[in-house]
Amino acid sequence: MAKKKPTYKSALHENDGIKEPDSFSADSANAIKAKRQKQVSVKHLVSDIISGHITALSRAITLVESTNASHTKKANEIITKCLPYANNSIRIGITGVPGVGKSTFIEAFGSYLTKKGKKVAVLAVDPSSSLSRGSILGDKTRMEDLVKDENAFIRPSPSGDSLGGVARKTRETIILCEAAGFDTIIIETVGVGQSETAVHSMVDFFLLLKLAGAGDELQGIKRGIIEMADAIVINKADGDNIKAAKTAKVEFNRALHLYPQKDSSWSPKVSLCSALKQEGISEVWEMIESYIETSTSNNYFETNRNNQNKFWLLQTIEERLKSNFYNSTKIKAELQTQIDLVEAGKTTPFVAAEYLLSL
Amino acid sequence: MAKKKPTYKSALHENDGIKEPDSFSADSANAIKAKRQKQVSVKHLVSDIISGHITALSRAITLVESTNASHTKKANEIITKCLPYANNSIRIGITGVPGVGKSTFIEAFGSYLTKKGKKVAVLAVDPSSSLSRGSILGDKTRMEDLVKDENAFIRPSPSGDSLGGVARKTRETIILCEAAGFDTIIIETVGVGQSETAVHSMVDFFLLLKLAGAGDELQGIKRGIIEMADAIVINKADGDNIKAAKTAKVEFNRALHLYPQKDSSWSPKVSLCSALKQEGISEVWEMIESYIETSTSNNYFETNRNNQNKFWLLQTIEERLKSNFYNSTKIKAELQTQIDLVEAGKTTPFVAAEYLLSL
Repeated sequence: MAKKKPTYKSALHENDGIKEPDSFSADSANAIKAKRQKQVSVKHLVSDIISGHITALSRAITLVESTNASHTKKANEIITKCLPYANNSIRIGITGVPGVGKSTFIEAFGSYLTKKGKKVAVLAVDPSSSLSRGSILGDKTRMEDLVKDENAFIRPSPSGDSLGGVARKTRETIILCEAAGFDTIIIETVGVGQSETAVHSMVDFFLLLKLAGAGDELQGIKRGIIEMADAIVINKADGDNIKAAKTAKVEFNRALHLYPQKDSSWSPKVSLCSALKQEGISEVWEMIESYIETSTSNNYFETNRNNQNKFWLLQTIEERLKSNFYNSTKIKAELQTQIDLVEAGKTTPFVAAEYLLSL
Repeated sequence: MAKKKPTYKSALHENDGIKEPDSFSADSANAIKAKRQKQVSVKHLVSDIISGHITALSRAITLVESTNASHTKKANEIITKCLPYANNSIRIGITGVPGVGKSTFIEAFGSYLTKKGKKVAVLAVDPSSSLSRGSILGDKTRMEDLVKDENAFIRPSPSGDSLGGVARKTRETIILCEAAGFDTIIIETVGVGQSETAVHSMVDFFLLLKLAGAGDELQGIKRGIIEMADAIVINKADGDNIKAAKTAKVEFNRALHLYPQKDSSWSPKVSLCSALKQEGISEVWEMIESYIETSTSNNYFETNRNNQNKFWLLQTIEERLKSNFYNSTKIKAELQTQIDLVEAGKTTPFVAAEYLLSL
């Protein structure tokens, strides 16, 4: 039926526009999609990663970070195939409170290393990054030089609702970066929850970045952090800060001596640097080289990596056992009631636990 | 048939002896047994405990410590019935390496408290006590006065093959002692494995006993111990030791200042004492009284106990989930193989964990 031409009661009217033609053929689009999907074959990706192709590496990391089950399956295949090419690196964890200058330090340290011929991957573990407060390394502009450096690879923290998930993704990304030829892996973290502990258990060397002055050396050190540190580097040791930085060095050295010797036989060191002025950077690297020498000669380096692997195996199992239990409908319905009964002194934690386990 | 009298070929023979008659009637024995079992009725035991009868308390603790399922059931009933009478105490954890003088300190401290009209129960957590090396508090003769003091109750560490089991029994014993009117519960532990952490999570106040001199203040401090301590008491601060003890006090005060403020808002203190000469004992108690004042006024005392209860509820569940998993036949058969594959770089910890969880 022919459409009747509308009649207008007013002179103020608009004609219907002409429908814009398709700017592309749906068939071609599907063909491109299919081709793209085909390109990401496991075999192809793995050989590209091993040849050091950054696009392939990024693509594989995206699969690792995906929550899609088929991506996870593919990611597991890729990682397993990359394993024989991984492990030849030094993994360095860097932590410090916001404002301590982590980005500036990593920029200076990373650039120093690439100039020495190293290939540097910079990753991060920040379980809070999925929240609005933004992720570390998210703002790559704070690492201007490093981001343009072809021997550096920077990847922000994967997002995730649990530290376990974020940590798992980062650990798998380490394997991929190593297979791609990166020989120095830097993992940045901030002191959020247990994230330092997680990073500590995936690196060879753990570096705590500190500021001197304003009583900072006496405050804000999260419990256990000093004990994990293989080095405390006092940043911004420049200008008017130098005296305070030197005092802080003495304080930290004293504090470190209160701890028993580490399993690695390594005595943690304190050093000063100014990341901004690129001073004290080579000293940090020399310290790490000396650590590698000590820990490989007494076999701690390899033993530690084996222990870390075993730790992550057991950790993954235990986290899953717990989440299966606590996420079951029955437990969700009863747990709080039992907690309330315990708090009210009507039952003991042990009797309540037995009851919940019997559900 | 009449037994034929034996004929002997030699003069060297012995006649058969006459069978010794039963020295007791089996019927009477059963009657006594039944009566004894009847005596240990839950109701009776509970009312005796609440009246402060030490025999009833000891008997209930024996039920708590038993591995017999019917005993455990009875113990749970008793504890639940005692709960409304528990909780009115100060629970003090005391740790220190062997040789630091824990027994002498507890003897002096406990006697000081009973003289002030307190009722003092001394318990212990020592998961190693089931091994041949002997248990702490096992040798009660080291607390000569306290053991004879009718306002003191000393019970050695329960035995057990896991720290979790030992800790559970001690926590339940605390409830029984409190219901029996003990207002000061002292829990002794040595630095074995995670036992200090376990004790820390069942007490209100955690005291680290140390020795001065011989560089002891710089050595042998287990990771995390200083962070848990509400007080460091330097023992044997007498005679030639006084100067070294004072130096140690300065060192520890400095070390304590490196840690962030505790949730309790309590600043850990360092004090000197000589348990042998009974010097500095009242100062320790004054410190604990001051802690109680601080922590009750800001509600930390109660919040902490609630958190501890919740911790033990979740802890018990998680330990059981793990032991059920790792003790299953399938996992026992496969776990080591997977660990070996991970170590050999043939699989990742995460893939191995998924495989084990799928069994």
